[in-house]
Amino acid sequence: MITKFCLNTLLILLISSFLIVVSVRYEPDWKSLDSRPLPSWYDEAKIGIFIHWGVFSVPSFGSEWFWYRWKTSKEPGIVDFMKRNYRPGFTYADFAPKFTTEFYNADEWANIFKASGARYIVLVTKHHEGFTNWPSNYSWNWNSVSVGPKRDLVGELATAIKSKTDLHLGLYHSLLEWFNPLYMADKASGFKTQDFVKSKTMPELYELVNTYKPDVIWSDGDWETTDVYWNATQFLAWLYNDSPVKDTVCVNDRWGKNIRCKHGGFLNCNDKYNPGKLQKKKWENAMTIDRYSWGYRRNARLADFLTLHDLLSEIVSTVSCGGNILINIGPTHDGMIVPIFQERLRELGDWLNVNGEAIYGSKPWTHQNDTVTKNIWYTSQKSSVSLDVYAILLSWPEGKVLTLGAPVPSSTTVVTMLGYSTKLDWKPGTKGGIDISIPVIPSNQLPCTDAWVLKIEGLEN
Amino acid sequence: MITKFCLNTLLILLISSFLIVVSVRYEPDWKSLDSRPLPSWYDEAKIGIFIHWGVFSVPSFGSEWFWYRWKTSKEPGIVDFMKRNYRPGFTYADFAPKFTTEFYNADEWANIFKASGARYIVLVTKHHEGFTNWPSNYSWNWNSVSVGPKRDLVGELATAIKSKTDLHLGLYHSLLEWFNPLYMADKASGFKTQDFVKSKTMPELYELVNTYKPDVIWSDGDWETTDVYWNATQFLAWLYNDSPVKDTVCVNDRWGKNIRCKHGGFLNCNDKYNPGKLQKKKWENAMTIDRYSWGYRRNARLADFLTLHDLLSEIVSTVSCGGNILINIGPTHDGMIVPIFQERLRELGDWLNVNGEAIYGSKPWTHQNDTVTKNIWYTSQKSSVSLDVYAILLSWPEGKVLTLGAPVPSSTTVVTMLGYSTKLDWKPGTKGGIDISIPVIPSNQLPCTDAWVLKIEGLEN
Amino acid sequence: MITKFCLNTLLILLISSFLIVVSVRYEPDWKSLDSRPLPSWYDEAKIGIFIHWGVFSVPSFGSEWFWYRWKTSKEPGIVDFMKRNYRPGFTYADFAPKFTTEFYNADEWANIFKASGARYIVLVTKHHEGFTNWPSNYSWNWNSVSVGPKRDLVGELATAIKSKTDLHLGLYHSLLEWFNPLYMADKASGFKTQDFVKSKTMPELYELVNTYKPDVIWSDGDWETTDVYWNATQFLAWLYNDSPVKDTVCVNDRWGKNIRCKHGGFLNCNDKYNPGKLQKKKWENAMTIDRYSWGYRRNARLADFLTLHDLLSEIVSTVSCGGNILINIGPTHDGMIVPIFQERLRELGDWLNVNGEAIYGSKPWTHQNDTVTKNIWYTSQKSSVSLDVYAILLSWPEGKVLTLGAPVPSSTTVVTMLGYSTKLDWKPGTKGGIDISIPVIPSNQLPCTDAWVLKIEGLEN
Amino acid sequence: MITKFCLNTLLILLISSFLIVVSVRYEPDWKSLDSRPLPSWYDEAKIGIFIHWGVFSVPSFGSEWFWYRWKTSKEPGIVDFMKRNYRPGFTYADFAPKFTTEFYNADEWANIFKASGARYIVLVTKHHEGFTNWPSNYSWNWNSVSVGPKRDLVGELATAIKSKTDLHLGLYHSLLEWFNPLYMADKASGFKTQDFVKSKTMPELYELVNTYKPDVIWSDGDWETTDVYWNATQFLAWLYNDSPVKDTVCVNDRWGKNIRCKHGGFLNCNDKYNPGKLQKKKWENAMTIDRYSWGYRRNARLADFLTLHDLLSEIVSTVSCGGNILINIGPTHDGMIVPIFQERLRELGDWLNVNGEAIYGSKPWTHQNDTVTKNIWYTSQKSSVSLDVYAILLSWPEGKVLTLGAPVPSSTTVVTMLGYSTKLDWKPGTKGGIDISIPVIPSNQLPCTDAWVLKIEGLEN
Repeated sequence: MITKFCLNTLLILLISSFLIVVSVRYEPDWKSLDSRPLPSWYDEAKIGIFIHWGVFSVPSFGSEWFWYRWKTSKEPGIVDFMKRNYRPGFTYADFAPKFTTEFYNADEWANIFKASGARYIVLVTKHHEGFTNWPSNYSWNWNSVSVGPKRDLVGELATAIKSKTDLHLGLYHSLLEWFNPLYMADKASGFKTQDFVKSKTMPELYELVNTYKPDVIWSDGDWETTDVYWNATQFLAWLYNDSPVKDTVCVNDRWGKNIRCKHGGFLNCNDKYNPGKLQKKKWENAMTIDRYSWGYRRNARLADFLTLHDLLSEIVSTVSCGGNILINIGPTHDGMIVPIFQERLRELGDWLNVNGEAIYGSKPWTHQNDTVTKNIWYTSQKSSVSLDVYAILLSWPEGKVLTLGAPVPSSTTVVTMLGYSTKLDWKPGTKGGIDISIPVIPSNQLPCTDAWVLKIEGLEN
Repeated sequence: MITKFCLNTLLILLISSFLIVVSVRYEPDWKSLDSRPLPSWYDEAKIGIFIHWGVFSVPSFGSEWFWYRWKTSKEPGIVDFMKRNYRPGFTYADFAPKFTTEFYNADEWANIFKASGARYIVLVTKHHEGFTNWPSNYSWNWNSVSVGPKRDLVGELATAIKSKTDLHLGLYHSLLEWFNPLYMADKASGFKTQDFVKSKTMPELYELVNTYKPDVIWSDGDWETTDVYWNATQFLAWLYNDSPVKDTVCVNDRWGKNIRCKHGGFLNCNDKYNPGKLQKKKWENAMTIDRYSWGYRRNARLADFLTLHDLLSEIVSTVSCGGNILINIGPTHDGMIVPIFQERLRELGDWLNVNGEAIYGSKPWTHQNDTVTKNIWYTSQKSSVSLDVYAILLSWPEGKVLTLGAPVPSSTTVVTMLGYSTKLDWKPGTKGGIDISIPVIPSNQLPCTDAWVLKIEGLEN
Repeated sequence: MITKFCLNTLLILLISSFLIVVSVRYEPDWKSLDSRPLPSWYDEAKIGIFIHWGVFSVPSFGSEWFWYRWKTSKEPGIVDFMKRNYRPGFTYADFAPKFTTEFYNADEWANIFKASGARYIVLVTKHHEGFTNWPSNYSWNWNSVSVGPKRDLVGELATAIKSKTDLHLGLYHSLLEWFNPLYMADKASGFKTQDFVKSKTMPELYELVNTYKPDVIWSDGDWETTDVYWNATQFLAWLYNDSPVKDTVCVNDRWGKNIRCKHGGFLNCNDKYNPGKLQKKKWENAMTIDRYSWGYRRNARLADFLTLHDLLSEIVSTVSCGGNILINIGPTHDGMIVPIFQERLRELGDWLNVNGEAIYGSKPWTHQNDTVTKNIWYTSQKSSVSLDVYAILLSWPEGKVLTLGAPVPSSTTVVTMLGYSTKLDWKPGTKGGIDISIPVIPSNQLPCTDAWVLKIEGLEN
Repeated sequence: MITKFCLNTLLILLISSFLIVVSVRYEPDWKSLDSRPLPSWYDEAKIGIFIHWGVFSVPSFGSEWFWYRWKTSKEPGIVDFMKRNYRPGFTYADFAPKFTTEFYNADEWANIFKASGARYIVLVTKHHEGFTNWPSNYSWNWNSVSVGPKRDLVGELATAIKSKTDLHLGLYHSLLEWFNPLYMADKASGFKTQDFVKSKTMPELYELVNTYKPDVIWSDGDWETTDVYWNATQFLAWLYNDSPVKDTVCVNDRWGKNIRCKHGGFLNCNDKYNPGKLQKKKWENAMTIDRYSWGYRRNARLADFLTLHDLLSEIVSTVSCGGNILINIGPTHDGMIVPIFQERLRELGDWLNVNGEAIYGSKPWTHQNDTVTKNIWYTSQKSSVSLDVYAILLSWPEGKVLTLGAPVPSSTTVVTMLGYSTKLDWKPGTKGGIDISIPVIPSNQLPCTDAWVLKIEGLEN
């Protein structure tokens, strides 16, 4: 027998699900747009791979800002490099035919990204140079099918990622183009005209979304003017209301110089943003394995690359404070991810195979660092019945006992090291907290290198 | 003391001068546009030089339609040329960096054109390939300053022509661009959308006129659709009413598939149009010295080039029927007008130095050809008091007496050969007309070669 | 019945023919070598085409001495050209891959040479740059099959000339190579060592003769040292005694700085040697249609090329004084003989079609120039019964009568103009010589332009 | 007063020192040449770096045998790579201009090699392609100063190695050149002619030795014929008797197909020779970090590179059996040692910093492997008083006690782990040998990774 109460409840459930389906329509203003909840997959994913690839990968010298540093900043190192190695009158556009990508194999890339433990990627589709890595209708003879690769670089990777992996596809897109004469004219007008926005950058963004259906739009190149010039809110309203990815897509915050670090989906704020403290809004630390460049540099030295330990420090400190990390690599002009990048990503994948439980789907804990011992970062996982806390140690404890100030053990507390089978002895700390006995593990039984995770179950708090 | 009459007269004068200044404003329809009188310099000029130069000058094989014949027609000769000489995946855009123009000297070109006796030039600023020979704001990275020459090819020649010669500057511009994705999209829509017209081809035309102030706009590439799609009448109304060249500019007739050979300034109708009869509207014969191509061909043989005699035949038959002639040459990728073109132009200049009186400023006569003797074309010059008729002989008369059927001599008739000092004897023809004694001129006193002009003054008619 | 006398005679005849067959063997010294009679075809041929083609045809700027003028003379014009157009560190060897010859068609070349009226050609097989236009075993990776053309340029033309024409094949070969380290080492030794001669330049010469069986070896690059260093006499003794072309081959005189203009086959002395007087030994005037270069120059102007009249002046003055003329053209890097060269050669061929009788197989007359009238050069032909004299007029006579001082007419003297059917009236000159009436020929009956030949038969002398 | 005895003694001393100075002179035969003792530095050095660099570094695809595999073996993978990426007719010589080396910094290379712990290097000066990495007088236009780098690659590294490090310089030189026409002609003659040897390969070797004064001549490319053709013994006799490096130079065994693995200095036998047993003659294991190529491969994957553990296994097994190891890396066409190579070399250097005592200057012990426990290799060091044995463990012992069968401890035996301060407990093994207690070392106190060395002092044997 179904009671009236029951019927009412059912009705309410039906209505609410209906409401959910119908869902909200967002207005093209930040109040409305900011009210959209970030699709949950993003926070759970934690780790993404950023891929900077473009015509700048041909000189692959200095950085992906090569053109600007050569022609606008006129940096002596860049100017001199051009003088020594190219004929007079060589233009940046002359690099494009040399963007050959003969070894580009999107399936192989997908495998490398998957093995790294990342859960999403963000591919540069067009950097500030304006060259589109897909055959845009709005970038004639300055795109990857007309010149250079003669391939749809974006399309190939989108297909591979979607068909070979569970990773989410993100697309980076620069709003501005340093040297596009239409942009320069708009800029000269004090951004009162919008010829560039209307005939170039916005048509491209719609084209990208409709063609490749990305789960992340990673906007950039917004900084010279406001969101009003860029028509940013109109685009986002369309993206959230009517685009083919309206339910899954996430965007960042680079939609105008007045917007970044304030509005949008997740916050990137500055490059390599890593505040070291818990943040109120979801954020992302976009950083690089090559300390000095996002694009590939042919003349990079080994010391220029983060070690696995450097990388884990960044990841752990980021995730602990509520951030995602977006780890950048720069492929070569011929389409390779060079072995040093493969090595760091594989090392990371090995580490995450053991310790992923402390990362993926984790939430920041009440503490980010320990109150007593340095170089320890906390994350947590809520299950239906309990809260598990993970203390991530960036160095092996000096002595036999590790004192943690933050966790308050209960009688049911259990401490383990991820990847190591034996439970760790502990006792309450003399000044509160917990004293954990660190086992001396034979070299061949160590679960991993560079950082180790203690899982602490059954805490008081 | 100023009388009333005087005041009235002044008033009328003021009003009329006001009317002259205000002048007519043309409406954007063909009836109105066609009513504009062609500026007189054009008909007087008679002889122009056409210059086909662009990225097609790099392969300089086949013709300036290289791209189309390779990719659309897939002509075996072109496809095979590419296979044999370029790496797989080489695109047309890859030719652009090789458009080097290192020997381009616009002053030298101006001198060559001037010495040819031409009175105007028409330079290709953008052919169907879409590459602009000037730094257009609307053709980013597909223009002569971004790629290849790194120079404003149009600007340099415009300056040289204007500062070093009395020639008029004309600019050729193709409305369509075979492979521009915006054009292709408009075309796919049945030309219902106009994205290409609005963001590319029309902005360029305005930019050209405002920047280089040409006296001829030589439009082309109109044939796939009507003038409505092209916004042609709007452009022409602006050109005639408000542009900086509104008083001197002439245009041709290629403004839509429904327009050519009907409306516009002068009529080009088809390429190499030479009807052989007097035409009602002013027309122009655009033709080539290389029989097989407008663009330079590296592998052209001597026999492919018109001889001076071939060229004079074209000129004389054209001018006699009221046409102008536009003689095409194709410079090389490195900026040279090769000697064979220089030779033909210099030979032409030598001929015109002697015989220009029969060409420049001439009017068609009542007859175009003679009624008795073949290979003779007539032109005429009206002075205040008389009409002089010029019989242009394309071969030296076979016998000692040349019988002309068309001119009816009077008692005051005087016959001379241009460039030869002695008057020629004549007597009335037996069946009307005139019998002219052809002098036997020693080889070293011949005024010119290949064609000779008899000037007949004081005719009855 | 055969008489004794008859038998004796037969014996003598047999012995002499045997002697002829056995023939002389030449010693490797100049006295012996100079005693060899020049094969008769050479003097009869009179007109040859010289072809300068090599890696220098790639820059095709300055001249075929490009490398030397760039690196040794350091001429500002050349140095600057390289700086402006090529990347730093670009070497001369880097030009070689651009020597593409894609339009090279040896049969077409053969037709062009044949139509010019020339009777032999001399092709540069290796210039001072050392690059061999054939796949020499002694020039690894610096020859036309390893780099650039990937074709045997010499072999293809040799085959075409031999199979399609009656022209004789000549091969130019530079003894020295400016920058060959072996040559430079020999030079540094004061030419005491001969490593270069033994491992490079002489093996090449033998290879050339054995492979292509040329009728002319046109040696060059001898001037820095003597014939002793070059092993010249040994080579020539082999060439005359044992080579496959011993009966037909002719050589020039550039076999050492002490030899030129003294020993060898025919004398070239200096470039463009044209002494203007009868010479005792057979000589050759090697000259160029482009006044300023033997190799092709992309930036040559029309005025840089000899006119037909210039060319005929050189030919006539040369042949009259007993010389042959070797007319140089420079093909392009892609294998074309550009139309301006084709035009000059065809014009020459047209002229020789009419006037060849005064050139081919002619002998110098007792006079080279006329004693009274300027710009007239004489040649003669001996037949079994008479001597015909040819007066070649480089300009059309000023008046109606041409007075020649040198020929003394007899009662049987007949004067004609080659190519013109009517005999010319003449009478004995008042001060000796002959007065010839110049007919006034209608323009369309002139046999040729630029130079005219009077044939004077039945002279007293 | 000097006694007679004294004088006699002095005389004897003088004579003997004279004998020492005069020393032995080696005959050009193997018996004599083999009698020369290998300079001691070589065996002590143990570890060298092999550097494969040349025109093959431009395609950097397949391997350094690219040319041969393309043109002779016609491997589909190589042929297809050329078809897809280069224009028809592209030759191997066309790669040379792209050998740019713009980032080549010999001082940096020297630092990398030094930091790896290697004690000598062997640089390819000329591989089978024949391109000389120095400006050889015998390789005109096919050397690194004429084409491509425009630098003396050998000279720059020689200077850096000698001025910045204590490493010994070795030079690799290929006797044969696959496609040199002189070599091919000699080969076609059944190696009866020696034109190639006399004018190319031997002059080069002398030039190399005299110019760069190397301590190793690493010969290769000998295999198609015998030492007699190569004039090998003459060269070696000169090298040992009269060359500027006669006292320090070492050579290998590749001097003829009948010689390798038999005669010469040290034995290389085959590539990657690692017999696994003690050898009578000094030998060297030349091997690669990239498993599949000696030259750089742009498309190498991470898995293609040896891990540090793989590399240590090779080193330890080689040194234990009396070999030296020559570890190959392939620089890029632009002159970089890519980070993955730098990483392996730095990791090796770190390991050797701790464990070098077991390697440098060590001698094979009586045992190479342990008789009881696998994956253990022995070396030893003799001091004046004792013999120390090193057991090198390629994996961490499974249990708490490691049983070694080979060493027989005495009462004074002391066991330590290199890099770890505490002595290790041991007791005599139950079946002979020794049982060593393996300490459980905290992760952060481990001296190294991948392989560990136990030093055993005071053995019975």
